[in-house]
Amino acid sequence: MAPLPSEDDVRGWLAERRNWGRWGEDDQRGAFNLITPETIVEAARLVRTGVRVSLARPLPTAPGPSNPFPVIHTMHKHDHGHPSGSGESGDTVTATGHGPLMTHLDALCHVWDEHGMWNGRDPDAEIGLDGTRWGGIEQWREGFICRGILLDVPRHRGEPYVTLERPVHGSELVSIAAAGGIELRPGDAVVVYCGLAAYERENGPMRAELRPGLHASCMPVIRDWDCSLLVWDMQDLTPSGYDAAAWSVHGVLYAYGVGLVDAVVLEPLVEECHRQSRNEFLVIVLPLFIQGGTGSAVNPVAVF
Amino acid sequence: MAPLPSEDDVRGWLAERRNWGRWGEDDQRGAFNLITPETIVEAARLVRTGVRVSLARPLPTAPGPSNPFPVIHTMHKHDHGHPSGSGESGDTVTATGHGPLMTHLDALCHVWDEHGMWNGRDPDAEIGLDGTRWGGIEQWREGFICRGILLDVPRHRGEPYVTLERPVHGSELVSIAAAGGIELRPGDAVVVYCGLAAYERENGPMRAELRPGLHASCMPVIRDWDCSLLVWDMQDLTPSGYDAAAWSVHGVLYAYGVGLVDAVVLEPLVEECHRQSRNEFLVIVLPLFIQGGTGSAVNPVAVF
Amino acid sequence: MAPLPSEDDVRGWLAERRNWGRWGEDDQRGAFNLITPETIVEAARLVRTGVRVSLARPLPTAPGPSNPFPVIHTMHKHDHGHPSGSGESGDTVTATGHGPLMTHLDALCHVWDEHGMWNGRDPDAEIGLDGTRWGGIEQWREGFICRGILLDVPRHRGEPYVTLERPVHGSELVSIAAAGGIELRPGDAVVVYCGLAAYERENGPMRAELRPGLHASCMPVIRDWDCSLLVWDMQDLTPSGYDAAAWSVHGVLYAYGVGLVDAVVLEPLVEECHRQSRNEFLVIVLPLFIQGGTGSAVNPVAVF
Amino acid sequence: MAPLPSEDDVRGWLAERRNWGRWGEDDQRGAFNLITPETIVEAARLVRTGVRVSLARPLPTAPGPSNPFPVIHTMHKHDHGHPSGSGESGDTVTATGHGPLMTHLDALCHVWDEHGMWNGRDPDAEIGLDGTRWGGIEQWREGFICRGILLDVPRHRGEPYVTLERPVHGSELVSIAAAGGIELRPGDAVVVYCGLAAYERENGPMRAELRPGLHASCMPVIRDWDCSLLVWDMQDLTPSGYDAAAWSVHGVLYAYGVGLVDAVVLEPLVEECHRQSRNEFLVIVLPLFIQGGTGSAVNPVAVF
Repeated sequence: MAPLPSEDDVRGWLAERRNWGRWGEDDQRGAFNLITPETIVEAARLVRTGVRVSLARPLPTAPGPSNPFPVIHTMHKHDHGHPSGSGESGDTVTATGHGPLMTHLDALCHVWDEHGMWNGRDPDAEIGLDGTRWGGIEQWREGFICRGILLDVPRHRGEPYVTLERPVHGSELVSIAAAGGIELRPGDAVVVYCGLAAYERENGPMRAELRPGLHASCMPVIRDWDCSLLVWDMQDLTPSGYDAAAWSVHGVLYAYGVGLVDAVVLEPLVEECHRQSRNEFLVIVLPLFIQGGTGSAVNPVAVF
Repeated sequence: MAPLPSEDDVRGWLAERRNWGRWGEDDQRGAFNLITPETIVEAARLVRTGVRVSLARPLPTAPGPSNPFPVIHTMHKHDHGHPSGSGESGDTVTATGHGPLMTHLDALCHVWDEHGMWNGRDPDAEIGLDGTRWGGIEQWREGFICRGILLDVPRHRGEPYVTLERPVHGSELVSIAAAGGIELRPGDAVVVYCGLAAYERENGPMRAELRPGLHASCMPVIRDWDCSLLVWDMQDLTPSGYDAAAWSVHGVLYAYGVGLVDAVVLEPLVEECHRQSRNEFLVIVLPLFIQGGTGSAVNPVAVF
Repeated sequence: MAPLPSEDDVRGWLAERRNWGRWGEDDQRGAFNLITPETIVEAARLVRTGVRVSLARPLPTAPGPSNPFPVIHTMHKHDHGHPSGSGESGDTVTATGHGPLMTHLDALCHVWDEHGMWNGRDPDAEIGLDGTRWGGIEQWREGFICRGILLDVPRHRGEPYVTLERPVHGSELVSIAAAGGIELRPGDAVVVYCGLAAYERENGPMRAELRPGLHASCMPVIRDWDCSLLVWDMQDLTPSGYDAAAWSVHGVLYAYGVGLVDAVVLEPLVEECHRQSRNEFLVIVLPLFIQGGTGSAVNPVAVF
Repeated sequence: MAPLPSEDDVRGWLAERRNWGRWGEDDQRGAFNLITPETIVEAARLVRTGVRVSLARPLPTAPGPSNPFPVIHTMHKHDHGHPSGSGESGDTVTATGHGPLMTHLDALCHVWDEHGMWNGRDPDAEIGLDGTRWGGIEQWREGFICRGILLDVPRHRGEPYVTLERPVHGSELVSIAAAGGIELRPGDAVVVYCGLAAYERENGPMRAELRPGLHASCMPVIRDWDCSLLVWDMQDLTPSGYDAAAWSVHGVLYAYGVGLVDAVVLEPLVEECHRQSRNEFLVIVLPLFIQGGTGSAVNPVAVF
């Protein structure tokens, strides 16, 4: 195994290789720009069997250590007082974003480091009481509609799930792609499966502060591949082992402009890939149009 | 013009022609069943230019007569106290469903009449404090992914928008389709454009209780066409003029199992259709996975 | 009638007569300081008949022009799965503050003008995403417990309610007090009754932007009297007729440090005063302990 | 020490000694009826030094094991666009009731057992989507204003706090009262101090499922004393050790109609009592007017 990257390596991936300015100083869309009419047409051609798989968890309403701010879902019902006996139900949902159990898409404004938010903006200047003025989720309201590539780490390793002792390195992502005969293309969504369900069956609920997952060395690979989106079930290796950032891989959001879809359920997707002997499909992620929002609950769907 | 349908006609469309039992007594998906692997593959083939159009309004946070329960969107921000200067933003959204300004998909449980909810269930038995036990939005979590057909009423009429005096009748929907050389197929999403933006420019915000839109006579047409989804900017003609239901066309939800997408913005879609001289496209509507929910805010996207 | 005060008069009341620094530069309690152990003991002695009157409206859950952000009140219920058949109900309340139908106490941070918030602080520096750092409602968590004095304008005028054409002037407050043989004392709560219920019976719901009530000339009287609290059913005359502030009397909050209790129901209090031929009583206003809050829904109670 | 009460004893206290029907079959106020004009006048006479002590915790916004549904408190701020530079702040609070860290008053509808809610009503019939129709918090909107009596268990024991091994029995409450020369009177609020802060300093946050506190044997004492209100820092001994109810003492709510104030901070009250060598004072608990509510966040205040 190669030596671990140094603190300076990680800093370099965040600072020197960043995409700031690549699509203009005023760009708020980041790697979403890599999804073009051409890539969309190509991605749509991947729909061959018409099978849909949702990657969403139910909105997490039960409190617990992994769910500090449960979604509050409450009901309404009333009669119309109309001769037809017409009636109506409704509901109210209160959702606090970015929880570890809520399937969601992070907006570019969601995280930053000392160098700033996406494209170098200052979070203190851009994020206010009325929402963010920079990199809000509304920038992506046309939706991520692109080719999705599954990288199945457990299958590659012949083990049920990724462990804290052996996080996923960038070189392993490259190996998995090569072994599967996959050539990544700009604008692709990379779906990294780490075996969360199997992990939790054996170890109990994954804790936010102690998380197997992707090592910081995955960052330059994501950058080389020019992904538009990273979809993952275990997220960042935590703790990261570096001072360069408070996370292992979340930095691809503000450094490269790559979207992140957190808290997905990947087992049904993996099964369908195996069933069809495919590792590519159409991915669709349509965030709600929340002006100035820092992210959105989503229902990501893969179509085969 | 043909004589107006009678009270009995309307009752008949709701009662005799209903789809209850068509997909089994325990079916909670309704006309969503008409979307099949084959129709999905065909719909995906409509993606030829890779242009995406969102039909969503921003979540409506401003109070007003048309927005009795504004969405409350508020922000969070905190530093991580990490040497990297890492920080994070988040937000909380409180949304009460089914408002006239919030783009949303109604679940099958949303409305009913004296005969019951979809498939004849009793709303008093099925709808409880924890959500609905029948026809919840989670039933559709694989998403509506289907062919969309635009029916452009103003263009057909040569007038800027539909008026209260002259609502859209079913026969007119049939004429528009015929004039456009469109043959509807089971599982299609019908998008009926009535010119809401032009209407509101001249008349001010549309009022919930006085609404031009689709006459009850559209119901049997929706049924004949076996649509899976109805997407509309003006919704039901209100008042309906009938005692058979408290609405003109919302009955297709519980009688036929057809999904409804309310409060959409259609002008950009209409423009793109004209630009490409097309009236068909891929429609994608992915509701959030709200267990027992009566609907979901959505960001419907059309792809050309 | 005396000539109307000039623009400069109003500016003077807000700027020259303000209480900034009176209790120290770091004081965040304002005229609440005028409530002392002695005034509390005296106020408690006013309890002679043991009659309690609540001045609260129900939390306003119905939407409408006067209620742009309705309170959302929704229910929970569950069984404990215990042999005793034990069960439990709960609820969730989402309340957006300061609405015209929600009985509430404004914190000192609630309003400001070009000179700043209470004691001259800068709202841009003090009010952040996590709450206010200056003049929050938690400063008053020991509660307003003081003598209340009713000033009954309609009774004094022999008219059912105050009209837009004839707002309440400071001189009239002085006259009403004199006619009732009342000598105001520092720390008193002044309750100004304008006849809101009678007004709304004849004129429909009072509109926020067109409101009879207290003229700016009431400000120096409130200041002379050294009130700790102003409780009122009609609030500020709106529009104020002056450029000095966006309101007529709300300036007493940041200029004098006087608490304001808005959206009260005063008719039952007035009736009890008449029944007992009294115009003084114990007033109790206990804000919730909301750290950094801009106010609190309250249930003000008068005890006779 | 006396033998532990039997299962049948506990059942008897809940069933045979209950107050159902005592104030009429339609009574929804319970022991609140024991607060009379006379007791209010007497309680007000306890105000001798004018010292106020708040028993409220700050609304609990931080998530954690003891706070499954954190209060969400978020801010608003806007300029009025007025020549005076006037501006305004506001906030939104979302609070889910009855949490172990939120100071609140339980309404009579909050809990029940197989025999029913207060006065024998059926929770399935009374508690609906729009609130409770029986025993809602609005029944008490005139407020608990009554004599408060402190029973200081740690001082009596000469130990810093109550432990799980040695919960508080009814006989001990009687002994503490006797030792203090206190004669309880109908309508009194009993404040039982168990030393929560000292407990948590040594043992970490109290867990909801493992709680020292009041043993079921306190119930008949509360009943004998005819208290209107029970204010406590440790609540019910948990687990109770009985099958008769899912709690040790919460049954006084539905069996006797006694109000409960949970999650209070009592140390400042205890200190003031010691400072003044008193164990009686005026207690004021004013619930918000929530129509059909199951309880209310409150700021209880004691006045000496």
